[in-house]
Amino acid sequence: MTLDPRVAAVRLAVRRVLRQPDVRRVLVACSGGADSLALLAATVFETRRHDVHVVGAVVDHGLQDGSAEHTARVVQQMADLGVDETVSARVQVDAGGLGPEAGAREARYDVLDQMAVHFGATRVLLGHTLDDQAETVLLGLARGSGGRSLAGMRESFQRDVAADSPWFWRPLLDVRRAQTEAACLAEGISWWTDPHNQDPRFARSRVRQSLLPVLERELGPGIAEALARTADQLQADTEVLDELAAHHFRELYDDELGFLVWALEPIALALRHRMLRLAALRAGCPPSELTAGHIKALALQVQNTEHLPKQIQLPGHVTAIREGDVLRFVRAPLA
Amino acid sequence: MTLDPRVAAVRLAVRRVLRQPDVRRVLVACSGGADSLALLAATVFETRRHDVHVVGAVVDHGLQDGSAEHTARVVQQMADLGVDETVSARVQVDAGGLGPEAGAREARYDVLDQMAVHFGATRVLLGHTLDDQAETVLLGLARGSGGRSLAGMRESFQRDVAADSPWFWRPLLDVRRAQTEAACLAEGISWWTDPHNQDPRFARSRVRQSLLPVLERELGPGIAEALARTADQLQADTEVLDELAAHHFRELYDDELGFLVWALEPIALALRHRMLRLAALRAGCPPSELTAGHIKALALQVQNTEHLPKQIQLPGHVTAIREGDVLRFVRAPLA
Repeated sequence: MTLDPRVAAVRLAVRRVLRQPDVRRVLVACSGGADSLALLAATVFETRRHDVHVVGAVVDHGLQDGSAEHTARVVQQMADLGVDETVSARVQVDAGGLGPEAGAREARYDVLDQMAVHFGATRVLLGHTLDDQAETVLLGLARGSGGRSLAGMRESFQRDVAADSPWFWRPLLDVRRAQTEAACLAEGISWWTDPHNQDPRFARSRVRQSLLPVLERELGPGIAEALARTADQLQADTEVLDELAAHHFRELYDDELGFLVWALEPIALALRHRMLRLAALRAGCPPSELTAGHIKALALQVQNTEHLPKQIQLPGHVTAIREGDVLRFVRAPLA
Repeated sequence: MTLDPRVAAVRLAVRRVLRQPDVRRVLVACSGGADSLALLAATVFETRRHDVHVVGAVVDHGLQDGSAEHTARVVQQMADLGVDETVSARVQVDAGGLGPEAGAREARYDVLDQMAVHFGATRVLLGHTLDDQAETVLLGLARGSGGRSLAGMRESFQRDVAADSPWFWRPLLDVRRAQTEAACLAEGISWWTDPHNQDPRFARSRVRQSLLPVLERELGPGIAEALARTADQLQADTEVLDELAAHHFRELYDDELGFLVWALEPIALALRHRMLRLAALRAGCPPSELTAGHIKALALQVQNTEHLPKQIQLPGHVTAIREGDVLRFVRAPLA
């Protein structure tokens, strides 16, 4: 029996992560969809000949009817696919200042992080595909806040910068969603289709159902790959610019005094805007509420004192105050 | 009679450019479309009270039937609108390695540059609007070559870096196309609609006719503005990264020797890729033919010598050769 090329593609992608030196226990996040089931099956296969322990994890957001039964089914399916251990947890989604989708994501990643710590896993594998990446880029495009929002999802990240906290990895960012479905079919794995993915109330499902097909038709095939490539390149760009901006920020920002505006003037706009963002975050602005509009208003405060209000209200009760040569950021709202 | 706000918006945008110190003579490129006619009318109005000479210019690409008659009509219309002088020229479009659209653009800009030099104009005004910018970003997205292709059109540029050569400006990049049409209507100016703009054979007209409306519907209104904002931010980012890369390139590249690969290793990928692009351009690759795929192949040559071919063929008969610690670029094809 020959190996299906789609199964091989998923396995190869997973192998690259498992080959890393400190991988002894991995946690695979599984929704029951084709992408995460293909990821799980590939992880089980690739660890067979190595001494790596695989934990399958399901997070129940409790947002849909029958989610407890669905969770139980996925746990059983993971066990049948041969994981060493299974775990599930129900989370309470508290959207807070975030939207419902972002709220669910934060809650999910928090609990996966805790599960990984509990099981001693150094990696959490997520099943996001190239198609998810392309959708993320398009959603970022609609926000219009530049490279940061277009750079999409990173291949790896840590929730907590502590050295021993687990790394999240997305091994399938170069694999198409259709490949994961074909891989499941080839291995006789049945998957669940999340009704939310078809629900036009969600921006992401509108992107998936309506927008990407029109983009493919009008701009030619390969648009999803082009969007994913864009994300890769903008991530690399953003990394360099963020690092440079953080360097200048450390040199020029004082927690008490703020910025001396003339010290910012020789700095290129791309870096200056990032430094103003860092100052706002440091003062306590929630990152998700800080928009390109806020940063633009701050940048105008640096350039001009004549015709502008001297205070700018920012999210999280932060106020930016221009006084003479100084732009400072204070947390408490002013009287 | 009160001033129509759309007319005022176009005039304000033009005023910002005319206010620059060395503007005594301007050339306005006019296709006969609403955007460039609104631009021309605003330029005539704004220069009335100042000693600025306005030349209206039409370029005939000879690509459509009746283009000579159309050109004559636009020349007459410009004269009726009160320009000080008119000029028209017919160009031969030689696409060369470019597509037909890019070929026509290059030919047009070349002749506008020559016209400006001839009339002593220090500025060439182009009528591109916010909508054109949004379309350019979407077309760049389809290419998937990162920030450079997404950064859209610059507000100003020079064809020739000589100090006294004219600057091209696009004053209407913050103005919607519909505003220019409304401004023409309000001033009783009739405009021509280029049939190519509706012709689905051209990617740009498909973007305009099909794609942007779907984006607006699925991602919400304001998508054109978001795309234009993205272009602004990525231009600022690209400027910083290009400058840094050029700095490292000057330090590390030798025309004879090429790069020492270990000298490239500590340099962040975003800069390294740009430096490899600079080396390929310096060796004679035509910029329009150099793709992200070529750069990726070059980057792999830096990282790895074991399993890769030691020569990479690049466009324009350039070969990149990895020999030991050196990656060098030669123009003539190797035997």
